[in-house]
Amino acid sequence: MWGGRFAEGPSAIMREINASIPFDKALWREDIAGSRAHVAMLAKQGIVSEADAKAIDEGLQQVAAEYERDGVPEDWDLEDIHMTVESRLTKIVGPAAGRLHTARSRNDQVATDFRMWVRSAMSRAEDGLAALMRALVTRADEHADSVMPGFTHLQTAQPVTLGHHLLAYFEMFERDRARFADARARLDECPLGSAALAGTGFDLDREMTAEALGFSRPTRNSLDAVSDRDFALDYLQAASTCAIHLSRLAEEMILWASQPFGFIKLPDALSTGSSIMPQKKNPDAAELVRGHAGRIIGAMTALSISMKGLPLAYSKDMQDDKPPVFEAAGLLDLCLAAMEGMVGKSTFDTGRMRKAAEAGHATATDLADWLVRQADIPFREAHHITGAAVKLADQKGVALDGLTIEDFHSIDERIGEGVFDVLSVDASVAARTSYGGTAPARVREQVAAARQRLGMED
Amino acid sequence: MWGGRFAEGPSAIMREINASIPFDKALWREDIAGSRAHVAMLAKQGIVSEADAKAIDEGLQQVAAEYERDGVPEDWDLEDIHMTVESRLTKIVGPAAGRLHTARSRNDQVATDFRMWVRSAMSRAEDGLAALMRALVTRADEHADSVMPGFTHLQTAQPVTLGHHLLAYFEMFERDRARFADARARLDECPLGSAALAGTGFDLDREMTAEALGFSRPTRNSLDAVSDRDFALDYLQAASTCAIHLSRLAEEMILWASQPFGFIKLPDALSTGSSIMPQKKNPDAAELVRGHAGRIIGAMTALSISMKGLPLAYSKDMQDDKPPVFEAAGLLDLCLAAMEGMVGKSTFDTGRMRKAAEAGHATATDLADWLVRQADIPFREAHHITGAAVKLADQKGVALDGLTIEDFHSIDERIGEGVFDVLSVDASVAARTSYGGTAPARVREQVAAARQRLGMED
Amino acid sequence: MWGGRFAEGPSAIMREINASIPFDKALWREDIAGSRAHVAMLAKQGIVSEADAKAIDEGLQQVAAEYERDGVPEDWDLEDIHMTVESRLTKIVGPAAGRLHTARSRNDQVATDFRMWVRSAMSRAEDGLAALMRALVTRADEHADSVMPGFTHLQTAQPVTLGHHLLAYFEMFERDRARFADARARLDECPLGSAALAGTGFDLDREMTAEALGFSRPTRNSLDAVSDRDFALDYLQAASTCAIHLSRLAEEMILWASQPFGFIKLPDALSTGSSIMPQKKNPDAAELVRGHAGRIIGAMTALSISMKGLPLAYSKDMQDDKPPVFEAAGLLDLCLAAMEGMVGKSTFDTGRMRKAAEAGHATATDLADWLVRQADIPFREAHHITGAAVKLADQKGVALDGLTIEDFHSIDERIGEGVFDVLSVDASVAARTSYGGTAPARVREQVAAARQRLGMED
Amino acid sequence: MWGGRFAEGPSAIMREINASIPFDKALWREDIAGSRAHVAMLAKQGIVSEADAKAIDEGLQQVAAEYERDGVPEDWDLEDIHMTVESRLTKIVGPAAGRLHTARSRNDQVATDFRMWVRSAMSRAEDGLAALMRALVTRADEHADSVMPGFTHLQTAQPVTLGHHLLAYFEMFERDRARFADARARLDECPLGSAALAGTGFDLDREMTAEALGFSRPTRNSLDAVSDRDFALDYLQAASTCAIHLSRLAEEMILWASQPFGFIKLPDALSTGSSIMPQKKNPDAAELVRGHAGRIIGAMTALSISMKGLPLAYSKDMQDDKPPVFEAAGLLDLCLAAMEGMVGKSTFDTGRMRKAAEAGHATATDLADWLVRQADIPFREAHHITGAAVKLADQKGVALDGLTIEDFHSIDERIGEGVFDVLSVDASVAARTSYGGTAPARVREQVAAARQRLGMED
Repeated sequence: MWGGRFAEGPSAIMREINASIPFDKALWREDIAGSRAHVAMLAKQGIVSEADAKAIDEGLQQVAAEYERDGVPEDWDLEDIHMTVESRLTKIVGPAAGRLHTARSRNDQVATDFRMWVRSAMSRAEDGLAALMRALVTRADEHADSVMPGFTHLQTAQPVTLGHHLLAYFEMFERDRARFADARARLDECPLGSAALAGTGFDLDREMTAEALGFSRPTRNSLDAVSDRDFALDYLQAASTCAIHLSRLAEEMILWASQPFGFIKLPDALSTGSSIMPQKKNPDAAELVRGHAGRIIGAMTALSISMKGLPLAYSKDMQDDKPPVFEAAGLLDLCLAAMEGMVGKSTFDTGRMRKAAEAGHATATDLADWLVRQADIPFREAHHITGAAVKLADQKGVALDGLTIEDFHSIDERIGEGVFDVLSVDASVAARTSYGGTAPARVREQVAAARQRLGMED
Repeated sequence: MWGGRFAEGPSAIMREINASIPFDKALWREDIAGSRAHVAMLAKQGIVSEADAKAIDEGLQQVAAEYERDGVPEDWDLEDIHMTVESRLTKIVGPAAGRLHTARSRNDQVATDFRMWVRSAMSRAEDGLAALMRALVTRADEHADSVMPGFTHLQTAQPVTLGHHLLAYFEMFERDRARFADARARLDECPLGSAALAGTGFDLDREMTAEALGFSRPTRNSLDAVSDRDFALDYLQAASTCAIHLSRLAEEMILWASQPFGFIKLPDALSTGSSIMPQKKNPDAAELVRGHAGRIIGAMTALSISMKGLPLAYSKDMQDDKPPVFEAAGLLDLCLAAMEGMVGKSTFDTGRMRKAAEAGHATATDLADWLVRQADIPFREAHHITGAAVKLADQKGVALDGLTIEDFHSIDERIGEGVFDVLSVDASVAARTSYGGTAPARVREQVAAARQRLGMED
Repeated sequence: MWGGRFAEGPSAIMREINASIPFDKALWREDIAGSRAHVAMLAKQGIVSEADAKAIDEGLQQVAAEYERDGVPEDWDLEDIHMTVESRLTKIVGPAAGRLHTARSRNDQVATDFRMWVRSAMSRAEDGLAALMRALVTRADEHADSVMPGFTHLQTAQPVTLGHHLLAYFEMFERDRARFADARARLDECPLGSAALAGTGFDLDREMTAEALGFSRPTRNSLDAVSDRDFALDYLQAASTCAIHLSRLAEEMILWASQPFGFIKLPDALSTGSSIMPQKKNPDAAELVRGHAGRIIGAMTALSISMKGLPLAYSKDMQDDKPPVFEAAGLLDLCLAAMEGMVGKSTFDTGRMRKAAEAGHATATDLADWLVRQADIPFREAHHITGAAVKLADQKGVALDGLTIEDFHSIDERIGEGVFDVLSVDASVAARTSYGGTAPARVREQVAAARQRLGMED
Repeated sequence: MWGGRFAEGPSAIMREINASIPFDKALWREDIAGSRAHVAMLAKQGIVSEADAKAIDEGLQQVAAEYERDGVPEDWDLEDIHMTVESRLTKIVGPAAGRLHTARSRNDQVATDFRMWVRSAMSRAEDGLAALMRALVTRADEHADSVMPGFTHLQTAQPVTLGHHLLAYFEMFERDRARFADARARLDECPLGSAALAGTGFDLDREMTAEALGFSRPTRNSLDAVSDRDFALDYLQAASTCAIHLSRLAEEMILWASQPFGFIKLPDALSTGSSIMPQKKNPDAAELVRGHAGRIIGAMTALSISMKGLPLAYSKDMQDDKPPVFEAAGLLDLCLAAMEGMVGKSTFDTGRMRKAAEAGHATATDLADWLVRQADIPFREAHHITGAAVKLADQKGVALDGLTIEDFHSIDERIGEGVFDVLSVDASVAARTSYGGTAPARVREQVAAARQRLGMED
């Protein structure tokens, strides 16, 4: 009847589908911290006796020591980390352990535990981002003058400096760090004491437990407190955007490491070989970062779907909140560390970069701009003249600065010798001094400002 | 060769796949504002003459007037709103119009236009949320004492007040409003002047254009400025979470309006009938809000996917940024307004709500808590005793407060007459006075605080 | 420098991000089967000696026996299941083990292993669906006459039979089974022998390995063979649609089990209680099925994202193919089994269902149809008259069949006594004999046909 | 009160959120065809008179002619295409038009219309795929011998032929075509006659309407028929997988068109220039194909979300089924046509491809394989020896075939002169004759087989 793997009938299936202990055991530290804060408050408020509270607290410390040493046992019949802890506590403390669950429910308990876990994940992300940003700014400083092709549509567009390029990622990651910080500020309310959904008639001091657990204040509405998983969505959304940025950097490193580009030599420690092609050196770490971005976005989507349309208050669907967050956090931590290594330890082949920048008529815009400035030609017309110069250079098989002044005159008489001052890639980048531009001087300013924001020593 | 609809060969396909004017014409106001700010700055910096700038500015105002009156023409050969505007301007102003595009590119132009559009959408969402929050707090005030069943797992759990329930949504929407505000603050940098990707050699005053367009400052890195669509993702993420909240409220309204629940009578103006079943009154607006949440999450997913793995700087994939945002914003605006109407205009059948709350032994937790408080029984044991009382009540076919004192004594001698004080739904809600709890007094406090935060007059 | 958890620097991070053994060890049976088939073929083709092949085959059997007994060891330095098996084999067999990897690569090896795993998951889904379909058809047979309200917009619309309602799900799951079967047929090609990406110069018999591993034929293009993960997407897409169907059934069971509906009593073995509310009986299994649907859709999204835009041939991003599939398959297996239990073991309260069907003027359409048939009134006009009757019934506080003939005449003279024959819920369902309709006779026909398609004995 | 855009209060919002006519007007042809089939059947069954049926049919033809000529009017008060058509019909035909809606509902009507529309979209996709496959096989035939680098991890791995590479995509698109065909077969049931949800008491001939509308049979269960959107999900899933394949090909074309690769010259008709950089030739079409894949996957996700957890039967959420399908279909049609043009009209720079293949020691595997075959060395050891040869070649700055026989002997004495026969890229590709391998002879076989499957004339 119950064929296949579920030979024991519905209760075996129920045990398996219902048990969250295989994953929520990750919350054991938070769960025990929450219980300790709760019982201390119950004692202070006279809801449990000091003696019982002391026994419970010591018992909880013992459980923590055991888990630290031996790991958390997975007994599906105990369903989740809350019952697992309480069951062990009862063995240690006896029936008094039953007083711990006064004026609370698993609904507010898990909301509190999970918030604390997510808060840590947010802090970890902020730290990982700071480390990656330090690596970027350090390499940008090194390469404030290194010329490379700037691409649009992956076509050589205009020369830029590598330092400028790396700082573009610095900007992205700085926004990411702010996103995690905003999310952490929004999470900063403690649900404990909301009980099952309606609050409780016991005279709690919710400020006390909130403070003990590192929150600024208790949540304001008990129904919302046990139904809310915004903090998990906030984490996943910030993680998704961050993963998108990481995937863009990874994409570029993969391109740059390819033989046709050859802009970069990857650190051995972050590359792998092939089981069949002995000559290969593969950018596995970058590829995994790019691939992981898909899973992180998938995790965000998953939780969004599971939460959509749920009536208040707690529904069991919400047990599906943790696996996507745990998975995404594990992946994001790794991605940040891997990209820090990739950025910090890769070797840039600035010679090849410069050579690539010199190909492709990357300074054509400089010619057009020169025509505007020197000859007062409207940009649209200058753009047209430049197109003719590019065409002629192609016909002659030379770069733009390989054209002679006669060549230029054959296109437009207004072009003078001065034009050669703007056609080299160095002149091009040096000229782009508008705020935010790629000129080395601008890049160094931004490096200095970035170092200051990061609190990096001189 | 090019069979089917693309009879004209590749260039016809290219025109169609490439043209963004069918949707980016929505940006015409922003595009013209951006151009006016740009040319004013060029003039001030001496890059174009005052006369040209004046002609261009007047020309742009004429274009705006034409579009306001006649709409924006869709000519696929002009590709996008930028070329559409410039083409018309050239007809009006002549070749001098060609000076407008000095020191900018469509890359920084579209980034600026789209930011301004998204900024407005964020503000609209904040306003829509405030209106919905006002409706919620007003109804919560009315129903601070109205008892209804609180559900977990959609099973009757404990009595709550309708006011408390509505305020749970207030909390969600208040977080949403803060999310949009955070996103708006993060967006508050102007890309204009970043040019194609590398900045420019013209001596721009980017502070000036930033200020003119309502931004606090220019962006710091030109490569990032033209590659960044975080602001659009930020909008879509905030919109997704908001849509999830709206979908939860919608789900409840649909449930409440069903015959078996019968908790609510929907406003005629937000319901529809049936083409075949004359007796029907359907909660279409709520269903559409619930359905739209799927599309808004889908839009967020779409843009996340399109951005993932893109190398710097601008890639044409990024043209796919606008349709998801435009779609999501249109849906969100409607959803907020519809739910404001549903909340504000529905009639609650408080009699049926109370009756439902009285069924289902919803005060069982109160009995357990009473045993803890009055008889000093550990909660876990009290929970067990209460289970026996529930079972006995079921056998006798009565509610918990329909048991006699003898019935209670048959279960546990420690239960005294005082227990009857806690078994009514009114006693239950009144007792839950913990901070954040459902007690009417607490609800009124929260209403008052919410009104103050919203700046609602007394 | 490599602060935080990655104290050992880039190589430690690389080991962790690169190692797939924590999850791909699930492929050990497929990996060993693939290697045995490969070496047998190499021997037959004279590429390795019979003696070496025999040693390797016996060694592989020993590895399998060890893993069966002790599990697969997780050594991150061995990266994946392929190197883990080969490393152990080398210890057993010595250098001859090095001949196993002739004319193959991990690229075709993993593609083959994973296909076999996914093929099994597809078969499991088909079996799980068949079991669920048997449960549905059995309950539908029981309840071919049981009247319940049919809902649209969750509003009582027309009476239907419970049997008809259950068979609607039968249809969905039958389509799902066909989807898995189609996907299995499309997967039925063996990549082994495609080597790294280009095929090989060894004279392989790919038909032989394909057959040995249960495939109908080898893949036709080696580049595609190692780059293709369509089979995994096919599984996830079929699983998503199936999960959506399961979530719809789960949603209904949750509704039906709520106190206001009260249509169903859930099996104890698939329900849980509350840690704080002793009276609760929660539909956890159904809620988890509904929640899991979100994660399954998320898994499909994740792999779609990871695959999008990857150039040929194998990229490491594709290592992110397995976790989403493994997760989704585990969840789907559980969901199917849980819903089979829910359907098979729940108790329907047909009395409450009938009562609900009799409320809400569910037979209004029957009245309109009667007017069309008996009085030759155009449907739109009949619909209008019926609306008036519903209104009058509401005013009098009766059901439609509680109106008198005089009441009807006051609305329209053409209504005769015969109308009362169609206003009961039994008459209503009995009348709907159009093909696919809810009439009990039609339901029994469909039950019989369904039993036949499933091969159920009489 | 109803501030902002919704100045007219709830009914204005309701009109806007409820109206589907702005998008479902796309169904007008299907809607009119469905109505004509329905009324013909009603007449044949004697449910409406021949005269009325004739009037209605002629009226419907007139409406069709009007819409063909003038487009479909958008009157939000008429909500949807069904009411829009019926309203116009009533004006033309008078009250008899009211007989058309006998024995049907908008629920089965829209299900039928939308199925027909999706069926056409599936056929269009199959045709678009066939055209693209023809282009691929034609170019593969041309380039069966053209050597290019095969990449894994975007690192040069082994030489392959361009023909082989293009045929890898042929395989993908052939699977896609089969997916659409499977989906079309599964869709092939007509919902018309299921009425609102329960079927009807009128004596319908559903076989007749099914046949008239091009379906093989009527649906079997009326509740399922009006609740089912599997066919739309099937379309979106097949479209997503197809879009992923297209995005992979697009990614490669973008890479190949970049200056560092330089493998391909894009057709002018499918490229664009730059508004600021006159030298640019951008692969816009390929980028848009890659970007559109994100939106198509997003559309699939959106509908999956909207359908998840919906109770039976029709819910208004299902109105959100059409926009994602319409959007995805429009994008997919364009992507297929654009890629057909890109494949058919691009110019391959086979010289640069060959040169790239000759770099990067792409024949290292050939050396290892030679050692296995000629010197009977286990592959793992041969792999090791080859690694040493690669290292030596790198030190000497030559390709593998630039090493002397003495060089090889310094590494391993067993290497003989014969090795030079396998170290050229031509020898390498010619050698890979295993089934599915890249050898030109194999490629030509596959081209011939592909042409036959496509029915291409010789």
